[in-house]
Amino acid sequence: MKSIKKLKPLAAVVGAGRTKFGELWYDNPEELLAEAGIKAMGSVEHGLRRKDIQACYFGSFLYQVTNKLGLVPGYMARELGMNIPMSNTEAACGSGGSALYNACLGIRSGEYDVVLVGGFEKMTDRSGKIIDDLMLAGDPHEFDTGYTFAGLYASMMVRYIHDYAHGSDSRCREALALIACKNHHHAMGNEYAQFRRELTMDDVFKSPLVADPIRVLHCSPISDGAVALVVVSPEMAKKYTDTPIYIVGSQQATDDVSLCSRESITGIKATRLATENVLKETSMTMGDIHVAEAHDCFTIEEILFLEDSGFCKRGEGWKIVYDSYESFKGSKHIPYVNGDRELIVNAGGGLKADGHPVGATGVRQVYECFKQLRGEAGGSQVDNELNVALCHNIGGTGGIATVHILVRELQ
Amino acid sequence: MKSIKKLKPLAAVVGAGRTKFGELWYDNPEELLAEAGIKAMGSVEHGLRRKDIQACYFGSFLYQVTNKLGLVPGYMARELGMNIPMSNTEAACGSGGSALYNACLGIRSGEYDVVLVGGFEKMTDRSGKIIDDLMLAGDPHEFDTGYTFAGLYASMMVRYIHDYAHGSDSRCREALALIACKNHHHAMGNEYAQFRRELTMDDVFKSPLVADPIRVLHCSPISDGAVALVVVSPEMAKKYTDTPIYIVGSQQATDDVSLCSRESITGIKATRLATENVLKETSMTMGDIHVAEAHDCFTIEEILFLEDSGFCKRGEGWKIVYDSYESFKGSKHIPYVNGDRELIVNAGGGLKADGHPVGATGVRQVYECFKQLRGEAGGSQVDNELNVALCHNIGGTGGIATVHILVRELQ
Repeated sequence: MKSIKKLKPLAAVVGAGRTKFGELWYDNPEELLAEAGIKAMGSVEHGLRRKDIQACYFGSFLYQVTNKLGLVPGYMARELGMNIPMSNTEAACGSGGSALYNACLGIRSGEYDVVLVGGFEKMTDRSGKIIDDLMLAGDPHEFDTGYTFAGLYASMMVRYIHDYAHGSDSRCREALALIACKNHHHAMGNEYAQFRRELTMDDVFKSPLVADPIRVLHCSPISDGAVALVVVSPEMAKKYTDTPIYIVGSQQATDDVSLCSRESITGIKATRLATENVLKETSMTMGDIHVAEAHDCFTIEEILFLEDSGFCKRGEGWKIVYDSYESFKGSKHIPYVNGDRELIVNAGGGLKADGHPVGATGVRQVYECFKQLRGEAGGSQVDNELNVALCHNIGGTGGIATVHILVRELQ
Repeated sequence: MKSIKKLKPLAAVVGAGRTKFGELWYDNPEELLAEAGIKAMGSVEHGLRRKDIQACYFGSFLYQVTNKLGLVPGYMARELGMNIPMSNTEAACGSGGSALYNACLGIRSGEYDVVLVGGFEKMTDRSGKIIDDLMLAGDPHEFDTGYTFAGLYASMMVRYIHDYAHGSDSRCREALALIACKNHHHAMGNEYAQFRRELTMDDVFKSPLVADPIRVLHCSPISDGAVALVVVSPEMAKKYTDTPIYIVGSQQATDDVSLCSRESITGIKATRLATENVLKETSMTMGDIHVAEAHDCFTIEEILFLEDSGFCKRGEGWKIVYDSYESFKGSKHIPYVNGDRELIVNAGGGLKADGHPVGATGVRQVYECFKQLRGEAGGSQVDNELNVALCHNIGGTGGIATVHILVRELQ
């Protein structure tokens, strides 16, 4: 393991809280977010008073159309009994990552030392109608021509298979199913996960077709849930806990909202740019990362992440998935191996099995890494010694991407 | 005039652009925002290349429900041809001010030297349905009991008249009408304003009743429009223009979204907190402010601003409005006078006459002050020499308030 040197922390996470993900019929969205926020504040080891919080950064996507709710700061002022500055950022499924990105800038500005970051979404109330709502993260022309979000990712999947697995389609399709199996396997020990059951490749292939070749079990679910973090300036970190987790890289990039206008649909330019920038910011390579949370909204996206981030070469992600699964089947976690690089992706189940309440996801990823790096991830704890984690959150089909790097020990 | 000393600028505005406000049937929202953004970039005197922009901060409210649009960063990446970090903040009618507030933190973080700040809203497409949509900025219980937004402000107006004008109701009601007359008068020279016609008190009293005692002409209109600013670090300001306008104070506060849960409904606590903090931040008093943009969504709110900000005592705002109007009727601008304090409010017509595309308003206020302080406000230019301006933007009935102070000369 390469030693990480001279890392300059931007901020530190000192507390984290979340709700279970799933169908949460009895809570409204602001109560879910308040529950996560209060848990996060309560989890701070050396104690944190509510009045220590100087600002809040929230992320959520569809609350206006699904929950008939606006002005999130006004709701959260009530729920948390605070009158401090609050922002709510909407960046589709990337809303949570975007909230954290802005929170890091808030801390870096010197205006705040202690902020609360939260993400939430309450989707199940809308039942079938949510599929239309989600197309707000796409271009209306895509919607008007009949696309659903699964349809857009199906186009990416078909093109990927065509371009990079010609002649070995069926193995590539198996790799795309194995990602779902792996993430369900990883979620078995995660008490908050929406799905805690093993999947077989056969289950995936026999599940209902949604948008050929995407089947139900290639998709992340419709979920309710909220997650919150207490984020502080690096100087204040040890005041609140003996084991802060430092944010050492925070980057965001954007791209044309419309899939058909992109340079390529077998890669996400915003992910590539944000990852390049975050690795440059931290002087790291993907070989330095021990665990990553990748935005596996559909299984193809986990493969694209491996390639866009530079963990492996373009077109080789599916082979690595396939070979790694074969090698590590049955182990507690199934790492991806590329030469001397080894990376555990979505150790708690990812969007696929932990759940995907869209605005909460980017914050949930950091929650997961915070717990993993502190050795507090319970049944999902990775056995290897961990020091560096990366979180990758995108919005829509890649109109925005936010990438954060977290470390336990700065040197 | 007290001399302002030792002001530490947070950021500087070096360019500004806007669209006309009104019923803009032929443009979609992202095109309006792009038009404003391109005008803002093009207005920078010493030249600004698109690639100089390092991040974008947008604000808008109802785009999901009114325009079936989400993930604003993805749209604006396309419209502006950029792949940089972008955020969209939703804070109801306070979205624009909130975007600028976050932009100032972004600049102060040291991560960016040059950012684009924009606000937009395209409301007219929804015609009557927009009145329901706007209730997303209120509590659903308020909506369910039959309140509209005018109804909520009518409650505040009734209570205000009851508490502070007992025995002289009719003069107070006249003051509430005169605010509309004044703001229409101020808009006469504003080429971008939605309404450029004089109103008489009689017009206001004869206009249709909306929610007793609020009549149509007490209300700001439903509008389309967009505004953008180029905001840079103080150190870079003179590179881009010889006459930057400095942002020296930037504060935000929040409060319970629901009117019935507030400590008082004849004052906005969030405005009071944000103004107190911004005056403290700049070591100023309201007597130092030459022009202010107040959030006159309904005329009662302009009176509350005068009192919440400390320009005058609680309950005396309406008298100052009445007496000032009587004294200065017919002059180009009608200042509010309280002892030795004199303040011109909404020099370009405010929300009432310039228009209120909700997400654009907080940015439009800064546009107006930027132009006024530079002496470039054309037909609406205030004749007095101006150095200090304040912008007050709220969301909902005061669930959030953002206040900025701008100056031309730092000493």
